[in-house]
Amino acid sequence: MTFSRTYPLRFAHCDPAGIAYYPRYFEICDGAIEDWTEAVIGVPRRVMHLDMGLALPTVTLDAEFTAVSRLGDPLDIAIEVTSVGNSSVGLRAEVSSNGEQRFAVRYKQVLMTMVTGEAMPWPDEWRARLAGEISE
Amino acid sequence: MTFSRTYPLRFAHCDPAGIAYYPRYFEICDGAIEDWTEAVIGVPRRVMHLDMGLALPTVTLDAEFTAVSRLGDPLDIAIEVTSVGNSSVGLRAEVSSNGEQRFAVRYKQVLMTMVTGEAMPWPDEWRARLAGEISE
Amino acid sequence: MTFSRTYPLRFAHCDPAGIAYYPRYFEICDGAIEDWTEAVIGVPRRVMHLDMGLALPTVTLDAEFTAVSRLGDPLDIAIEVTSVGNSSVGLRAEVSSNGEQRFAVRYKQVLMTMVTGEAMPWPDEWRARLAGEISE
Amino acid sequence: MTFSRTYPLRFAHCDPAGIAYYPRYFEICDGAIEDWTEAVIGVPRRVMHLDMGLALPTVTLDAEFTAVSRLGDPLDIAIEVTSVGNSSVGLRAEVSSNGEQRFAVRYKQVLMTMVTGEAMPWPDEWRARLAGEISE
Repeated sequence: MTFSRTYPLRFAHCDPAGIAYYPRYFEICDGAIEDWTEAVIGVPRRVMHLDMGLALPTVTLDAEFTAVSRLGDPLDIAIEVTSVGNSSVGLRAEVSSNGEQRFAVRYKQVLMTMVTGEAMPWPDEWRARLAGEISE
Repeated sequence: MTFSRTYPLRFAHCDPAGIAYYPRYFEICDGAIEDWTEAVIGVPRRVMHLDMGLALPTVTLDAEFTAVSRLGDPLDIAIEVTSVGNSSVGLRAEVSSNGEQRFAVRYKQVLMTMVTGEAMPWPDEWRARLAGEISE
Repeated sequence: MTFSRTYPLRFAHCDPAGIAYYPRYFEICDGAIEDWTEAVIGVPRRVMHLDMGLALPTVTLDAEFTAVSRLGDPLDIAIEVTSVGNSSVGLRAEVSSNGEQRFAVRYKQVLMTMVTGEAMPWPDEWRARLAGEISE
Repeated sequence: MTFSRTYPLRFAHCDPAGIAYYPRYFEICDGAIEDWTEAVIGVPRRVMHLDMGLALPTVTLDAEFTAVSRLGDPLDIAIEVTSVGNSSVGLRAEVSSNGEQRFAVRYKQVLMTMVTGEAMPWPDEWRARLAGEISE
């Protein structure tokens, strides 16, 4: 099953060439992963970060940009779980607009406690939810 | 009549104090004005900027921040037209969350052609639409 | 006496019109105020925020934009103290490039403790340093 | 030969966990590549983009984050050329602070004309300069 949302490409995201500035793409995808966390893991980021003191930093990331995006393009972002480790998760974001692929990003993220900066094993319920999402 | 939309305060918008970083507030409000342009003036920013070669830069801005916002807060942004000049418009954005006022911004923006950088009088239809929105 | 630094206007700061995007201006000025804090108050922001648990949020801000800036422009930012209150400070940032004024911002900022969110009187040494800077 | 510059990690770059927010890392590296372009290829980005109508978009990117960075850390960014193709260049940015590695990014970028969006072969002089930089 794929989590999917649509976000507009805004003026703030575009560069002097009139196209999306790629560091902004990572912010937009990060917003999608924020919404995915609540929908799939079942916990809002506010609770995860501020109340539980947990973070989900990215340890590796690779991206391929296949076509440019322009101001006002609706970006359709689909997020899939590709793997679940002891305290890590693999994610893939596929981004298209009006049916044309724009870019894709693969992430490895790790659950950690913010105070110690140490990796933390997934709570059982979260791991079960993530495992149920694996699509490849 | 007041144009109003709700946008989430995201992780990307928050600072090491865990609250909204105010330069990001201006990006969020700018996104709201982007949506307002299409709804009220009747032209998407993509068409205004890329096809018509027009811009709507801010010439003055004043802001008052009354309460902090935290990660995940839904920001309710209401935008009102406060004045319409030959080529300018006055706007006021009032931002609240869960009924509590967070901040307000007053803008003066001016229509200009991007090639010359000169102010341009409002097209009649746009001026009429703006004038119909004045609320104070 | 005026604190002054020069920062480049980068690609990341420019919009599809090829000019500075004003929310980015506030980030650039904020960086200048960061450097000013260490030079004038005598404490790095890292120490202020992370070690001392203090913040210096903006409560009001007004800006006037007089000429556009383009990619690569060196922005000369001069920061002056305009007033010092019990726990507040007034600042003015004047920004020019190659001798031409671009924009100016006036801020009122307040010292507060991050845990309680309460305003805190200036420590005597900091107040003395700020008072010695007042230029108007 | 390695191009190297140091930039501060600012408040604007940090997240509610008090550490660098990784989409901001890409902006900071992009600023370093901006400075590298002028130093190594010999043309400022302003001239390349605004006068010559050329862009240098990223087509692939992979990043590995090995240790977190905190507010005020000086980021030492070293940029190396890893390959030069007909119209492409491979770059590697190694980022450390106080001698500790923080993250590394590998990029493939392609020279293109902004009007057509087509790849363009490197001008001879630029290719010669890039080839002279290859370090692996």
